[in-house]
Amino acid sequence: MRAVDLIIKKRDKLELTNEEIGFLVEGYTDGSIPDYQMSAWAMAVLLNGMSAEEITNLTLAMARSGETLDLGQEVYPVVDKHSTGGVGDKTTLTVAPIVAACGLPVGKMSGRGLGFSGGTIDKLESIPGFKTDLTTQQFIEILKEHQIVLTGQSADLAPADGKLYALRDVTGTVQSIPLIASSVMSKKIAAGAHAIVLDVKVGQGAFMKTLDDAKELAHTMVAIGKLSGRKVIAVLSPMDQPLGSAVGNALEVKEAVEMLKGIGPEDYRYHCQHLAAYMLLLGGKAATEEQGLVLAQRAIDNGSALEKFCELVIAQGGDVSYIDDLGKLPKAGIIHTIQAEESGWAAEVNAQEIGESSVILGAGRLKKGDPIDPAVGIMVHVKIGDRVEKGQTLFEVHVNDECKYNEAMVKIKKSVKISNEPVEAPPYFYGVIGL
Amino acid sequence: MRAVDLIIKKRDKLELTNEEIGFLVEGYTDGSIPDYQMSAWAMAVLLNGMSAEEITNLTLAMARSGETLDLGQEVYPVVDKHSTGGVGDKTTLTVAPIVAACGLPVGKMSGRGLGFSGGTIDKLESIPGFKTDLTTQQFIEILKEHQIVLTGQSADLAPADGKLYALRDVTGTVQSIPLIASSVMSKKIAAGAHAIVLDVKVGQGAFMKTLDDAKELAHTMVAIGKLSGRKVIAVLSPMDQPLGSAVGNALEVKEAVEMLKGIGPEDYRYHCQHLAAYMLLLGGKAATEEQGLVLAQRAIDNGSALEKFCELVIAQGGDVSYIDDLGKLPKAGIIHTIQAEESGWAAEVNAQEIGESSVILGAGRLKKGDPIDPAVGIMVHVKIGDRVEKGQTLFEVHVNDECKYNEAMVKIKKSVKISNEPVEAPPYFYGVIGL
Repeated sequence: MRAVDLIIKKRDKLELTNEEIGFLVEGYTDGSIPDYQMSAWAMAVLLNGMSAEEITNLTLAMARSGETLDLGQEVYPVVDKHSTGGVGDKTTLTVAPIVAACGLPVGKMSGRGLGFSGGTIDKLESIPGFKTDLTTQQFIEILKEHQIVLTGQSADLAPADGKLYALRDVTGTVQSIPLIASSVMSKKIAAGAHAIVLDVKVGQGAFMKTLDDAKELAHTMVAIGKLSGRKVIAVLSPMDQPLGSAVGNALEVKEAVEMLKGIGPEDYRYHCQHLAAYMLLLGGKAATEEQGLVLAQRAIDNGSALEKFCELVIAQGGDVSYIDDLGKLPKAGIIHTIQAEESGWAAEVNAQEIGESSVILGAGRLKKGDPIDPAVGIMVHVKIGDRVEKGQTLFEVHVNDECKYNEAMVKIKKSVKISNEPVEAPPYFYGVIGL
Repeated sequence: MRAVDLIIKKRDKLELTNEEIGFLVEGYTDGSIPDYQMSAWAMAVLLNGMSAEEITNLTLAMARSGETLDLGQEVYPVVDKHSTGGVGDKTTLTVAPIVAACGLPVGKMSGRGLGFSGGTIDKLESIPGFKTDLTTQQFIEILKEHQIVLTGQSADLAPADGKLYALRDVTGTVQSIPLIASSVMSKKIAAGAHAIVLDVKVGQGAFMKTLDDAKELAHTMVAIGKLSGRKVIAVLSPMDQPLGSAVGNALEVKEAVEMLKGIGPEDYRYHCQHLAAYMLLLGGKAATEEQGLVLAQRAIDNGSALEKFCELVIAQGGDVSYIDDLGKLPKAGIIHTIQAEESGWAAEVNAQEIGESSVILGAGRLKKGDPIDPAVGIMVHVKIGDRVEKGQTLFEVHVNDECKYNEAMVKIKKSVKISNEPVEAPPYFYGVIGL
């Protein structure tokens, strides 16, 4: 078998066999197939597409390209969730402890933020001492003992995906639904998830800009789940405006923990409660979505979810006094407010602009490895559809550097459009696929 | 400017500017743009195409990626010809001296054979002492003094093309008309040609398998000529069966020199006379095609073309006694003949099968750098449409190794199909573009 013949096959819109895909992924992982062949192949995939079977074979080949966690003998079932990334998306921090508190093990590896999207790991590191670089052994032990573990992505899992993703990033081959879907799913499968709830974001502040693209990605990932024997459902949720109010690492931890006490923005509450319900449903703890919603609400109401979060923080070496007293979390030196310059209805609260503003303030990074400031960020006090009066505070900007604020402020102001006519609020979900 | 953005632009079917194409070609030549970006871009070009202007800009950028010969101050106009490659295509050996004998300078850099296609340089090296690795200075001096020079491709000319071609070969991006056209034309333009006659071969034994593809390639190259200020015409000629009779290096030199004496197969005579006529027309030595045909015939009849060939051999260090006495050329140890196994009409004399058979005998090479045997080859004594009687000799196979013969013989026999019905002979040309 020669890599060039497989490139030509895909170039000519033919379907690759499982063996052929395995040859490509193994060869790329061990270095016998060079970057320049893999990038030509990736471009052919991007332009010519792949069948559901090819995508599944690619996913599984990438999943087995390195270490794989078989958690079935230790804990079962392990439920995971994955968001395609958004602004203010601190969902994992709230949902994981809710679900674990209901008795369903949640073992999750998360990423760091890049560009205008935040990352769960960065947020957790706002809590002093919290370790996010667990070994595989630690991951399994904590999961067994506490039914919950949240750590960074291990480089040993799905290394083919890591290598291919880095290559796609510099060869214009990121925006391919088969490649995005297999990238996400290969990591989840390698990490041992038996059931996965996917949160596919759509809109200005998301990777998928249109509902059609998001639906295609969701269907593709659900199909991979079906073909690979994992339970998968995908929620389609809007990401035109930030989720909840907080954007920034410590600010988001605060909002996520408050939600575990039943306090916080309605869109975020709805989102968390439903994602938790779907995880409970997939994991067999709830017979119906409704029952899942009840269980999730109860875990908040009786304090068991908050308790589970504290247990997680302690298990991973974090200082739980920062959770008991959220006021101890890193705080910015200055808080500026931005007021509405006119009255009307909020027609746009652009998530991407706000996400980019938070990066300017230091809450995110433009490239891998950049340091971040856990304290800074933006509290967004306006939602699309809200009635707004001139002079009303729309944003609280948490700042440690005035120069950065001046730059960010222009962008934050630009993120809001006020209409003279009433504007309808967007739905919380566009739909659920695979239920 | 970033290479990844230009890849994305082409991926999204947008047109690249001259500056952008220059950035890619320069960056690739100096190594600042890596293979893996260039191969992704090449795949996007293959699948999404390029405009005539983009192709011309690519051609000119590759032409100026290294040394360029500006022959205008030394000799003017310099006319070149290029064949896309075929079996038994020894046209340059006959046409170049005819045209030079008519007073039009011919400065040509040729390639070596690869796969089932032969190469002019390999053929010329059948003549002991003939130097095909001239320096640029020697190329110019011989051209000035003798109005003719035939040498190998200099690595200093269009290095971007050399590098990109090698990359395309291993990334499934060879079969792209914009990339093929710019590759051919960049080398011609870098070598200083003012006018170029292209011989685009079509059929089983050619790179272009269909007339539509050949026409598209021809139109593309003529358009590059127009946009870059070079005079270009393209002949479309069939390559289902070998051109002339001889296939093999010394055998082809013999046939080419005999044609300079007016002796040889009619298809080959027609081909050479017309190509010479078009070169004379483009170079301004003939006012019409008809006049060009007359001039070419006269150069054969009065012996000046043969004399010019001898002058070329001497100028490039070859032993001209091998031309005066063609019997001195390298000869194979054994000559086998293959007879017709039935009577009828020749429906197929497959050029690719015969070309591959000659490679098996040792006349060609499967990969760069393989040695070749100048003596071996095949004399093809049957043309499509010929009446054939059982027992008639169809092939003379010149052999130095019986084992190789046994393998080649099976293939050679397979190359001929005999029909019970009369078969029409193919035309000599399918047409001329750019006239």
